[in-house]
Amino acid sequence: MQEFYADQDIKVLIDAARAARSKSYSPYSHFQVGAALLTRSGEIYTGCNIESASFSPTNCAERTAFFKAVSEGVMEFKAIAIVGALENQPLTFCGPCGVCRQVMREFCDPNLFRIFLSQDDYLTRSYTLEELLPEGFGPENILIEKTSPMEDA
Amino acid sequence: MQEFYADQDIKVLIDAARAARSKSYSPYSHFQVGAALLTRSGEIYTGCNIESASFSPTNCAERTAFFKAVSEGVMEFKAIAIVGALENQPLTFCGPCGVCRQVMREFCDPNLFRIFLSQDDYLTRSYTLEELLPEGFGPENILIEKTSPMEDA
Amino acid sequence: MQEFYADQDIKVLIDAARAARSKSYSPYSHFQVGAALLTRSGEIYTGCNIESASFSPTNCAERTAFFKAVSEGVMEFKAIAIVGALENQPLTFCGPCGVCRQVMREFCDPNLFRIFLSQDDYLTRSYTLEELLPEGFGPENILIEKTSPMEDA
Amino acid sequence: MQEFYADQDIKVLIDAARAARSKSYSPYSHFQVGAALLTRSGEIYTGCNIESASFSPTNCAERTAFFKAVSEGVMEFKAIAIVGALENQPLTFCGPCGVCRQVMREFCDPNLFRIFLSQDDYLTRSYTLEELLPEGFGPENILIEKTSPMEDA
Repeated sequence: MQEFYADQDIKVLIDAARAARSKSYSPYSHFQVGAALLTRSGEIYTGCNIESASFSPTNCAERTAFFKAVSEGVMEFKAIAIVGALENQPLTFCGPCGVCRQVMREFCDPNLFRIFLSQDDYLTRSYTLEELLPEGFGPENILIEKTSPMEDA
Repeated sequence: MQEFYADQDIKVLIDAARAARSKSYSPYSHFQVGAALLTRSGEIYTGCNIESASFSPTNCAERTAFFKAVSEGVMEFKAIAIVGALENQPLTFCGPCGVCRQVMREFCDPNLFRIFLSQDDYLTRSYTLEELLPEGFGPENILIEKTSPMEDA
Repeated sequence: MQEFYADQDIKVLIDAARAARSKSYSPYSHFQVGAALLTRSGEIYTGCNIESASFSPTNCAERTAFFKAVSEGVMEFKAIAIVGALENQPLTFCGPCGVCRQVMREFCDPNLFRIFLSQDDYLTRSYTLEELLPEGFGPENILIEKTSPMEDA
Repeated sequence: MQEFYADQDIKVLIDAARAARSKSYSPYSHFQVGAALLTRSGEIYTGCNIESASFSPTNCAERTAFFKAVSEGVMEFKAIAIVGALENQPLTFCGPCGVCRQVMREFCDPNLFRIFLSQDDYLTRSYTLEELLPEGFGPENILIEKTSPMEDA
């Protein structure tokens, strides 16, 4: 983990996460989160948390950003910025939940993908995914072959 | 439920779902789904299913489309078209899973929102959400007040 | 759907659901649910809702009951009773969320499995799973073969 | 992280996880997991993974064990043993998925709760939850007050 004040490049990502947070649909927790996902080619996909009355289908900001990118065919990522706080409260460091770390593990290199958590004053903590999800369970644990079962027929 | 061959308007939505299906990330099930969500103002948000090695974080096509729309601040919807099949198989009627019906229940009027399931030949079944999720558990069951807990302080 | 006052047999199931509800862990919604699942051999497995700060991993009462049974090797079920309300409020009809209906679909015959919703006075509504999850997506949609991929090697 | 051959006490927990694994319902991944959760008072709750055709409602072995315990009113835990592998394959170290780490975070002290991963020969790795889910998002992030909203009325 490194802690620093964000430089201009990372500020752009953090500001995208802040803007996305304004769309948060969180009538049950009133906890609002925004995320901005940087692709290898330099694009940014953003997301907010979207809650559900039955709680389980709730989707976090980080996953919203990932699902938007993947659904557009984008699967290579460099970093994500995350900001969160109860509504009307100052931003404090808000770590991604375990579900979101798992989705990151599906698409990202644990040693290269970076996660930025940021406060109101742009004080920022930077982690690799491996730091936040060591010993991760991933595709390599479960995929015995990359070929389609269709091809076996 | 009504069954009919899609007219031009609905074909546009089904074709958007078919195109979205091509982005499906489904290395574990090889079952590919696409969805196209029509907003009240006439825009279309699309999605595909996105799987996870640990299965639980998997996101269906329908939810991907909803989360994209909601994260852009859009929360009023008219209909969704869904197409699905194992890869390289013809499209057959593929009902939304319960998780996705629950997310629809969060944002849609059960009696007005329409769900279209379609086959390769555009033979289409149309349901209201109420038909597919009767006695649904929704926001009205859990929200005792619309005010923020912040305002109680 | 049928509506009636529960007879003695169904009261036993409803009372088991009520007792289970007392274990509800719901610090975020304060909505407490209990469920009691009747197996083909006449045993009852119970469950309550168990929430999570990140919402998505939340488990409903119905699923808790199913997971307990299945983890003991029991996979044949006849009916489930469900009771729910905000804490300190009277029980009102509380339909299962879509996620739980989907789990029921995995293990139960849609036309035979019965779901009982009950109020404080034992006024009860009874549904088949097919009534609550028509056009359900189930194992038959995705399982192309019952054999293990191991056997292909 | 520590690595060692399990002593008798930990073997008991690992063997309970192995026995639970035999109940795994995993027709889609054929990846079978068992878990055994040790409570503060010395009881053991076990669980297996239970899959769903729509993937999202899938429940892992670790969560099954937690939900069983919590639904019985037990909420204080010391450790969990986890074993997993594709069916008919030798057990290898199998880390918990992010969703399960999040559920652990709800109920356990990150610095005290221990997670044991074990191979066929009882070679075992031991982690604290803090090691596997650093910077975890937990109840303290979201609970602004412990009182019920009912009491506000």
